[in-house]
Amino acid sequence: MPKLDLSQLPSHSNCSYPGKLSDGFEGRSAQALGDPSGITQFGVNIVTLQPGAQSSLRHYHIQQDEFLMMTEGELVLIDDDGEHVMRPGDCAAFPAGDANGHHLINKSDVPAAFLVVGTRTPTETAIYSDIDMKVEVDADGYSFTRKDGSPLTADQIGDKND
Amino acid sequence: MPKLDLSQLPSHSNCSYPGKLSDGFEGRSAQALGDPSGITQFGVNIVTLQPGAQSSLRHYHIQQDEFLMMTEGELVLIDDDGEHVMRPGDCAAFPAGDANGHHLINKSDVPAAFLVVGTRTPTETAIYSDIDMKVEVDADGYSFTRKDGSPLTADQIGDKND
Repeated sequence: MPKLDLSQLPSHSNCSYPGKLSDGFEGRSAQALGDPSGITQFGVNIVTLQPGAQSSLRHYHIQQDEFLMMTEGELVLIDDDGEHVMRPGDCAAFPAGDANGHHLINKSDVPAAFLVVGTRTPTETAIYSDIDMKVEVDADGYSFTRKDGSPLTADQIGDKND
Repeated sequence: MPKLDLSQLPSHSNCSYPGKLSDGFEGRSAQALGDPSGITQFGVNIVTLQPGAQSSLRHYHIQQDEFLMMTEGELVLIDDDGEHVMRPGDCAAFPAGDANGHHLINKSDVPAAFLVVGTRTPTETAIYSDIDMKVEVDADGYSFTRKDGSPLTADQIGDKND
């Protein structure tokens, strides 16, 4: 039925970043609300960040709009303009193609969470603001490379075989 | 910048329903968050309902997914399965084409509000569950008719010239 029972929807802590870039994301979990409810045109997640955790590496999307509303605790939104404190009810929007990369960090000592919505598109490219990396996404999955398309180096991702 | 200053975004109480069908929507207001932030792929609104107000006539969308999260107060979600109490943090999703029409009513004595997201598509049709009406939306605006496409009657909408 349309009303969701959030207590029955699983959370996951998967991180798709290659090698050592996935280190430090243990404190991030996401509860997907779109798939279980049959929605296909945009994704909806509640992302919870434990103290010290971050939402993602700072990035922006080429094809997909993104929107978030804070639901719990306090986070710091970091973008090209600096740091912005986000509290429950605060919202932020990231239009597709706007090169102002963003992520959120929990600098408090209690968990914090936000609802995030992103368009679903058959393909997508995201650019990482602070490192030489981009990701191309299609039906086959994620392909992380340097911004010029060349492979990431061991210097960037270590030699972990994942 | 990405973080929105909600105190600076206007609310409106416009109601597009024809004739007397727009009666009783004075207690509904919506604050658009998508347009001011440059997002184009989905719409985002915070809808506030005063005591007694409803979100819309009960309806479902043919082409557009819809998702909402309660942010304030208490509302009753009405769908084919009956009434469901919605409190802050509660979510509901309405996949495109799912013929389970819905709306929300404020049966409490204080204002209540929810965040709602809907895909933007070039055209859209919505079907009203409890009356013989549909609406077709395109770049030219809204066209309300009976479900068979014939004009609404004075019996349905009165003779108000709007």
